Amino acid sequence: MLAPEAVQELKAIVGEERFRTDMETLVTHSYDATPMFQALPDGVIFPCRTEEVQAIMQVAANYRIPVISRGSGSNLSASTVPAEGGIVMVMTRMNRILEIDQENLTATVQPGVITKELHQAVEELGLFYPPDPGSMAVSTIGGNIAQCAGGLRGLKYGTTKDYVLGLEAVLASGEVIRTGGKLAKDVAGYDLTKLLVGSEGTLAIVTEATLKLLPKPEYRRVMVAHFTDLEAAAQTVSEIIANRIIPCTLEFLDQGTIQVVEEFANIGLPTDMAAILLMEQDGPQAVVDRDILRMEEICRKGNAAHVQVARTPEEGNQLLAARRSALSALARSKPTTILEDATVPRAAIATMVRTINEIARKNRVRICTFGHAGDGNLHPTCMTDARNQEEIERVEEAFAEIFAAALELGGTITGEHGVGLAKAPYLEWKAGKAGIEVLKGIKRAFDPLNLLNPGKIFAKETRPRVVITCPETREK
Amino acid sequence: MLAPEAVQELKAIVGEERFRTDMETLVTHSYDATPMFQALPDGVIFPCRTEEVQAIMQVAANYRIPVISRGSGSNLSASTVPAEGGIVMVMTRMNRILEIDQENLTATVQPGVITKELHQAVEELGLFYPPDPGSMAVSTIGGNIAQCAGGLRGLKYGTTKDYVLGLEAVLASGEVIRTGGKLAKDVAGYDLTKLLVGSEGTLAIVTEATLKLLPKPEYRRVMVAHFTDLEAAAQTVSEIIANRIIPCTLEFLDQGTIQVVEEFANIGLPTDMAAILLMEQDGPQAVVDRDILRMEEICRKGNAAHVQVARTPEEGNQLLAARRSALSALARSKPTTILEDATVPRAAIATMVRTINEIARKNRVRICTFGHAGDGNLHPTCMTDARNQEEIERVEEAFAEIFAAALELGGTITGEHGVGLAKAPYLEWKAGKAGIEVLKGIKRAFDPLNLLNPGKIFAKETRPRVVITCPETREK
Repeated sequence: MLAPEAVQELKAIVGEERFRTDMETLVTHSYDATPMFQALPDGVIFPCRTEEVQAIMQVAANYRIPVISRGSGSNLSASTVPAEGGIVMVMTRMNRILEIDQENLTATVQPGVITKELHQAVEELGLFYPPDPGSMAVSTIGGNIAQCAGGLRGLKYGTTKDYVLGLEAVLASGEVIRTGGKLAKDVAGYDLTKLLVGSEGTLAIVTEATLKLLPKPEYRRVMVAHFTDLEAAAQTVSEIIANRIIPCTLEFLDQGTIQVVEEFANIGLPTDMAAILLMEQDGPQAVVDRDILRMEEICRKGNAAHVQVARTPEEGNQLLAARRSALSALARSKPTTILEDATVPRAAIATMVRTINEIARKNRVRICTFGHAGDGNLHPTCMTDARNQEEIERVEEAFAEIFAAALELGGTITGEHGVGLAKAPYLEWKAGKAGIEVLKGIKRAFDPLNLLNPGKIFAKETRPRVVITCPETREK
Repeated sequence: MLAPEAVQELKAIVGEERFRTDMETLVTHSYDATPMFQALPDGVIFPCRTEEVQAIMQVAANYRIPVISRGSGSNLSASTVPAEGGIVMVMTRMNRILEIDQENLTATVQPGVITKELHQAVEELGLFYPPDPGSMAVSTIGGNIAQCAGGLRGLKYGTTKDYVLGLEAVLASGEVIRTGGKLAKDVAGYDLTKLLVGSEGTLAIVTEATLKLLPKPEYRRVMVAHFTDLEAAAQTVSEIIANRIIPCTLEFLDQGTIQVVEEFANIGLPTDMAAILLMEQDGPQAVVDRDILRMEEICRKGNAAHVQVARTPEEGNQLLAARRSALSALARSKPTTILEDATVPRAAIATMVRTINEIARKNRVRICTFGHAGDGNLHPTCMTDARNQEEIERVEEAFAEIFAAALELGGTITGEHGVGLAKAPYLEWKAGKAGIEVLKGIKRAFDPLNLLNPGKIFAKETRPRVVITCPETREK
């Protein structure tokens, strides 16, 4: 519950209209895209300017009110659920593209800009902003920065982190800092820009970002390959990279995903195949054509049952449709869909997929796996029912084993979704005790009163570590 | 002075041979490549294994001994001068390339590996490690990581930060942390990997690094353009980028540099020119040839007095010789050479060079400017004499004005050399008071006893900010 004086002060900053405590607004901001996490905030506030964010933080500091900043809430780690109450600060009204600087190849934006709108704005000028998270039609750049969003183009182009050059951010104290700038090189002090990217609103509130743009690739082409054998598909991924080809996307769907997508979308997918690889290359046409030709040969040599190169952009889009509709298809099949993103070194993909299947069988849960094969970022997705407590416990056990397996293979518990609430109990498995202490020290340095998105990243209790032996490490 | 017990314990860890307190060794490790900074350490230690680094740090923590880790000491910000005494920890005996993983395109190395040796090792396998600092023939990867080294290829390929995927590091407490991994995507907690890169040995001691590799570019080609007019050269840089060409290097030499280099090297440079641009493109041959042709046209349209495209790799190397010998040439002309690296947004280069010349004239000092035009990272270089105190004061005033001017244009006080001791008095100009407090908080979180490279990055006193108005901002 907020003190009446605090409410009054907050209303004085933004006006009655932009500070809400009605139940409808509270419920609307009690959850994000993560299933099974929900908590009511005490208020919801909609700032329009950096100065308002500063003033709100000063009130929050005075009255010790937690502040959870968010954009569209499309994250998948319960990163914006107000776990300890407080005020949800919705950044969507700070949604202007302030500048696209064609000389310095930068865009300066407010945090509420929708990712896809930025894509369109820069592409009209022949420029390119590569990060393309699955939620890009609704996600905000501020949210992408908070979570360090990835996407399909990560293999060739990296993730959000690689495109944030500078930030304006409001600290827990209400003070403003400015980091970086329109600069390719800047080593003046520790890199606060990269530290804030992926910090999930726990260190500061981003109010402006300067982003790096690239020239837009001139040409793009899509191809697909079907495999009766999972190993052959994974081996083909490795062969492509070993041949020094870095396609802009290199996506993978396992048999379970293929079957569910076909059932949902009826687009003629081969439900008897063990795996589909989807590849796209972009760049100058001559290079794209050459790379596609070479990937076609590698797929054929790698025993693909079927290889198809799109002849037109429309055909390319059709081929990509299978991947694009994967999540929607999986989400329809059962009441609750849990989408994870355990990530492994690229060369360990086949082992990881086999391990996931083994874990699912053992725990009697249904998990389909698709994802970014090129960068080892897999999305094992569980179709379940949150109302079935007994099944949910088995699902949780299965995911704990999946995280343990990813770490066993040199991977991580989350490639692009973030820690939030959902993966906090597992973070120590990756970071180690000493690492967690360092992370907590950084949190304290920024936010000594623990007001910014409290309860996230750091769990009250670490889950006991599951011992898992992956097939590959077993063989050794 | 070290306590005799501490000396005994340190010798017990590494043996007599690898812990030195003789004057010759102390003097040898009292300075780095930065002129006018020197301080004697109390001892010099040469660890061979991570466990030794841990044990040394435990002794250092017990006896409150500062520890300054270093590689070859080729940095230009006095970042490895033992300003407050203590032990210099030389990492050059941990110099093995542990693995080059061709499936995951990574190299795992110890910190003492020489940058150029890594280049050679990966290039033999058709792979590529882009960071190429000027000192790469002697610099170590550990030093590159500590300073976030840049180089000539920064415009297209970024800097060291963009290639460090994971680290093993020893904390001030002696504990080990492991960050990241062979992973393109990893958002498990704040990004400690990127935070440690560029932290100049003040947060932890890097004992192992996993680096990202790229396929080696198939082909490369060099060209040069001479300009009678500085503006025309700068405008040409902007035009190249505006035409969506990102060359792998785009270097600039001003008239002063041209004259000094020609005097030194006698390679037929046109001493009457206001500027030379050197461009290199790499990639598939068809693309390189097309980009070179387009850059040639842009240079001609931009009123270049002379344009030459190298016909052979040997001719390319000859053209690059002017840039490569710039520092040596400048360094020979006077007893003391101060090489700075104020950096501005690319579009502000002409303004910045003009401002530098104006500042040099006003302060009656000789400054030549060359550097990475494509990424706005300039190296204004002052030829002076450290023994002439009156002149040195004018030099310092001039550099203070240059830093102020860079900031005025949206730039930074250091693009790739680091803060160290040399630029610590200016850091607050860039980071702001609130920013400095955040940076200090991070330092305290890692190193509460202030043992790791104390005195660096944070100055005892901030230099009063010079007020400078650049020609461009004056016109507004």
